[in-house]
Amino acid sequence: MDNEKIIREFIQAWSRLDAEELSTYFAEEGVYHNMPTAAVAGRENVKQMIAGFIAAWTETEWEILHLISAGDVVIAERLDRTRAGDKSVDLPCTGVFEMENGKIKVWRDYFDLGTYAKGMS
Amino acid sequence: MDNEKIIREFIQAWSRLDAEELSTYFAEEGVYHNMPTAAVAGRENVKQMIAGFIAAWTETEWEILHLISAGDVVIAERLDRTRAGDKSVDLPCTGVFEMENGKIKVWRDYFDLGTYAKGMS
Repeated sequence: MDNEKIIREFIQAWSRLDAEELSTYFAEEGVYHNMPTAAVAGRENVKQMIAGFIAAWTETEWEILHLISAGDVVIAERLDRTRAGDKSVDLPCTGVFEMENGKIKVWRDYFDLGTYAKGMS
Repeated sequence: MDNEKIIREFIQAWSRLDAEELSTYFAEEGVYHNMPTAAVAGRENVKQMIAGFIAAWTETEWEILHLISAGDVVIAERLDRTRAGDKSVDLPCTGVFEMENGKIKVWRDYFDLGTYAKGMS
C-alpha cells in the first residue's frame, strides 16, 4: 500500500507546480516517458523536462479516477485539469508507475497528445 | 481473478479480427471509449464500430505488459501490434475496464491517436 500512497502524494504534488519537488519522487536513474514523445532518464533530466513543460501552466489539478497496484506496479487513471493563462485542457491520462524502494523507477504516461495540444493552442 | 481472466481472453481474441465475437464480451449497454475520440454505447454499436476500424487490418497481436485488477476494475497496459497490408503500427495503450457480471460495462482506452495515424498512413 505504501507505493499507492506515494503515487497519490505525487499526483497531488503536481498542483504545486514545483519541478524540483516532483523530481524527488524519482529514483536517481528514474525514467519519465510520456508515451507520445521520447523517454527522459535521470532525475536531473526529468526535473528539466518537467520545468520546461509546466513553465506556461498557471494551475493544475489531477483527479484520480482509479488507482490500483500489484507488487511494485501502480496504475493511476486520471483526469488532469490544467490552465495556462486563458487556455485550459482536461486531459484523460493513465500512468503506469514501476516503483523501487519507494521511488519511481519508470513512469509511462498514456494520453492523446492532440487533445493536449488542442486545449493549449 | 475471473475478471482478469476474461480481459486476458478478450485481449487475445482481438487477433481473430472478429467484431461479432469481440462484441459478446460487452454488456448489452456496454461502452467502448477510445479516449481520443467519442464513446460508443450499446453492444450492437460497439460491434459496428469495431468492424469499421478493423476492416483494413490484416493482422493484430496485443501484448500485455501489465494487467492488474481491484474489484470490478481491470487495467491492462499493452503494446498493440497491428498490420494493415504493408502498413503497421506498434501502439502503446492502457485500457481501463469496468466489469459487471463478467461483461465489459465500460472500457476506456488511452493511447495517442497521432501515433496510430502515423503508422497507418
